[in-house]
Amino acid sequence: MQPMRQLTSLLLPELKQALKDSNEAAARDVVEVLHPADIADLLIHLEDDEALTLFRALDLRRRAEVFEHLGEYQEDLIERIGPQLMAGVINEMSSDDRAWLMRELPEAVRNSLLPLMAQAERDDVKRLLAHEEDTAGSIMSTEYATVQPQMTVAQALEHLRREAPNRETIYTVYVVDEQRQLVGVVSLQELILASPQKRIEDLMLREPVSATVETDQEEVARTMAKYDFLALPIVDAEKRMVGIVTYDDIFDILQEEHQEDAELSAAVVPTEISYNNAGALHLVRKRVGWLMVLLVAAFLSSTVISRFEGALEAVVALAFFIPVLIDAGGNTGSQSATLVIRGMATGDLHLRDWLRVLSKELLVGLILGAALGLMLFLWGSIWSPARTVAPVVGLTMIVLVLWANLVGAMMPLVLSKLRLDPAVASAPLITTVVDATGLLIYFSIAVIVLDI
Amino acid sequence: MQPMRQLTSLLLPELKQALKDSNEAAARDVVEVLHPADIADLLIHLEDDEALTLFRALDLRRRAEVFEHLGEYQEDLIERIGPQLMAGVINEMSSDDRAWLMRELPEAVRNSLLPLMAQAERDDVKRLLAHEEDTAGSIMSTEYATVQPQMTVAQALEHLRREAPNRETIYTVYVVDEQRQLVGVVSLQELILASPQKRIEDLMLREPVSATVETDQEEVARTMAKYDFLALPIVDAEKRMVGIVTYDDIFDILQEEHQEDAELSAAVVPTEISYNNAGALHLVRKRVGWLMVLLVAAFLSSTVISRFEGALEAVVALAFFIPVLIDAGGNTGSQSATLVIRGMATGDLHLRDWLRVLSKELLVGLILGAALGLMLFLWGSIWSPARTVAPVVGLTMIVLVLWANLVGAMMPLVLSKLRLDPAVASAPLITTVVDATGLLIYFSIAVIVLDI
Repeated sequence: MQPMRQLTSLLLPELKQALKDSNEAAARDVVEVLHPADIADLLIHLEDDEALTLFRALDLRRRAEVFEHLGEYQEDLIERIGPQLMAGVINEMSSDDRAWLMRELPEAVRNSLLPLMAQAERDDVKRLLAHEEDTAGSIMSTEYATVQPQMTVAQALEHLRREAPNRETIYTVYVVDEQRQLVGVVSLQELILASPQKRIEDLMLREPVSATVETDQEEVARTMAKYDFLALPIVDAEKRMVGIVTYDDIFDILQEEHQEDAELSAAVVPTEISYNNAGALHLVRKRVGWLMVLLVAAFLSSTVISRFEGALEAVVALAFFIPVLIDAGGNTGSQSATLVIRGMATGDLHLRDWLRVLSKELLVGLILGAALGLMLFLWGSIWSPARTVAPVVGLTMIVLVLWANLVGAMMPLVLSKLRLDPAVASAPLITTVVDATGLLIYFSIAVIVLDI
Repeated sequence: MQPMRQLTSLLLPELKQALKDSNEAAARDVVEVLHPADIADLLIHLEDDEALTLFRALDLRRRAEVFEHLGEYQEDLIERIGPQLMAGVINEMSSDDRAWLMRELPEAVRNSLLPLMAQAERDDVKRLLAHEEDTAGSIMSTEYATVQPQMTVAQALEHLRREAPNRETIYTVYVVDEQRQLVGVVSLQELILASPQKRIEDLMLREPVSATVETDQEEVARTMAKYDFLALPIVDAEKRMVGIVTYDDIFDILQEEHQEDAELSAAVVPTEISYNNAGALHLVRKRVGWLMVLLVAAFLSSTVISRFEGALEAVVALAFFIPVLIDAGGNTGSQSATLVIRGMATGDLHLRDWLRVLSKELLVGLILGAALGLMLFLWGSIWSPARTVAPVVGLTMIVLVLWANLVGAMMPLVLSKLRLDPAVASAPLITTVVDATGLLIYFSIAVIVLDI
């Protein structure tokens, strides 16, 4: 759990007293000035019964706002407070947060809640849940503000004033025709500055940037970041407007993506449970699978070395350089993979650019290999236990770095061609591929150069 | 460069024709409907002289908007178009984008531009540049909207209507007293819904969440994501309001942070040049330094192995497991480091929690070590070339995984204590630390168990 704001922690004793006295009105007064996210922090820090009393003391709208900020504790609260009372709260939630929650809940809990919800909200949830996960359709809100092209600015403002309480944002306003097709966009800032008699169609920006319900959520995030959009309109296959994605969804997507990529690249199965709430066994489960797979893959390296047992017995100094060579290969491969993944993520590189990437990385790999190879050769030459193998390790380093660099650069492109997340091409996977092949290169060069 | 929107690429031939005919009015008409980000895309795709003609055809305000979206091409354009013409454009830019640009420009270019800018904008730039990089002060905009507590809603709306053209956002409005101290916040949505006679002080949310000019930009991003804020007010040491950070800045910070962390964890020096624009030599420079440092560090592993040359000569099968053991150590350490770094980034874990982390990871490390150790022992027992060393490698795996797990978990906490970015505790660094120590553990156990 996050640390509380100072203001929030200052209010905690007063709040606890009010809750102990079962004084709901006093408790409500204490939290009145607080942002829903701060009240959610308080709920998490309170004892179970205190938390329930506080939650019950809030009015329905406020309960929904607080609930939206509870994150991984939402499920907990539903269990404790019971589906009857929670169904009303969930009715009041914003459309996208509600759909997200229903998607995350275990099926049994979802099935107990759905029949208790109002018809309109239930239909909205079902419609949103029909979209595939991680698409624009699955994160969009259906509470957006629209106006018609023939309205005047004054009419539009009056219309927005009536709609505002039930809309996630009225700052970006979408212009739709009779078929609900998206024909323009206008900002509230422009409406406020415009003359009241002006028609919307003369003010709006035509051909607005939009995404479809199937667009990947990371693509939506990139588009919104490019245009600095507060909200992006989402359209269906017939170009009818069906929802919006707002800036706060993008905050979540960008943070989630960051975390998932970091976990993927460290061979950890991503989870949504925080470190503090995850028990040792949960952490083991997230980690042991990948470690075992990588261990089995590493057995291949053992087999390669064992095939050159004779060469090793003849020149035991060859063993000294096994860690140096495989580390250098792994590091080089991770570097080029990371640069290519980043290029693909920013839309800078595409599958069709593979030949350009290959030739650039061929050159880069040669220069890096030459630099590292020379360094290793020099060190091997002045370090007496290794003098005999210095030319072998220097030469191996050049070939290995070049090879690892190409593997690292090509792997994200290949994964993307196979429709897998290129971010999987991370340090552990590259190390595994480069280790065994690198050792094969090493011992083959040794056998030839040293004639063993 | 990013791929263009379909609409944008459809307009390209028409635009090129207009530019070829030097028909500025026609060119202006073509791009009229486009978002500044799209015009920036076009500029990048045009020939040098065409781009200059198009840029000159735009009015000053539009030039500034387009220029803000040019990213790494900004410096290029300044060079080609000359400081005289650019100074006017830079005057028109939004306050935070302008400060960012001036910070990024080489000193010589900045010094040639500053004297050409208007006095007010020049002072604004100097004030913003005085803040340390990556703090709220360095990314904030000074163009925010304020009202006074005793104003009525009607007066406030009228005031905002006058201020709107020069404000980055009027959707979140800050309430300041005579000392310019921040006393409240109100959204435009609330103002529009409120009765016109109501006083701002009766409507505003008091004690608004804020940050100081010194707050780290990533902390600002976390706060805004937590509260779903469109903008966060920034105050100075006397709690006077001095700026705002807006949601679009957070998009940039989150993307930048993601990229920097990915590059750090792959031992690449972060850069702002895209893969396409980076030549092979630039890529080599970003990578060769870290590779050399890591290579020198890996020499330590060679030294450790060479000290056990006698043991290796006696039992050459010990060499078969060097890659398996060091890979497992590196993978385990990266896993625990990543989980602890993530916990610290979300505010879930703090330095003072080190003992709790240590005891949890001690348990996790023991379980993981036991699982991997057993697996390796079994494989060693059935694989005939390795049978003699199976107990040694099994036992080593348990100790090594436990050790690597603790190193990985503690390193981010130690780095943070030293006021270094915990994200530096990445795969290459952990591998380097765990390699040499792990080999020392391995050969020591071998010497004792096999009595060699």
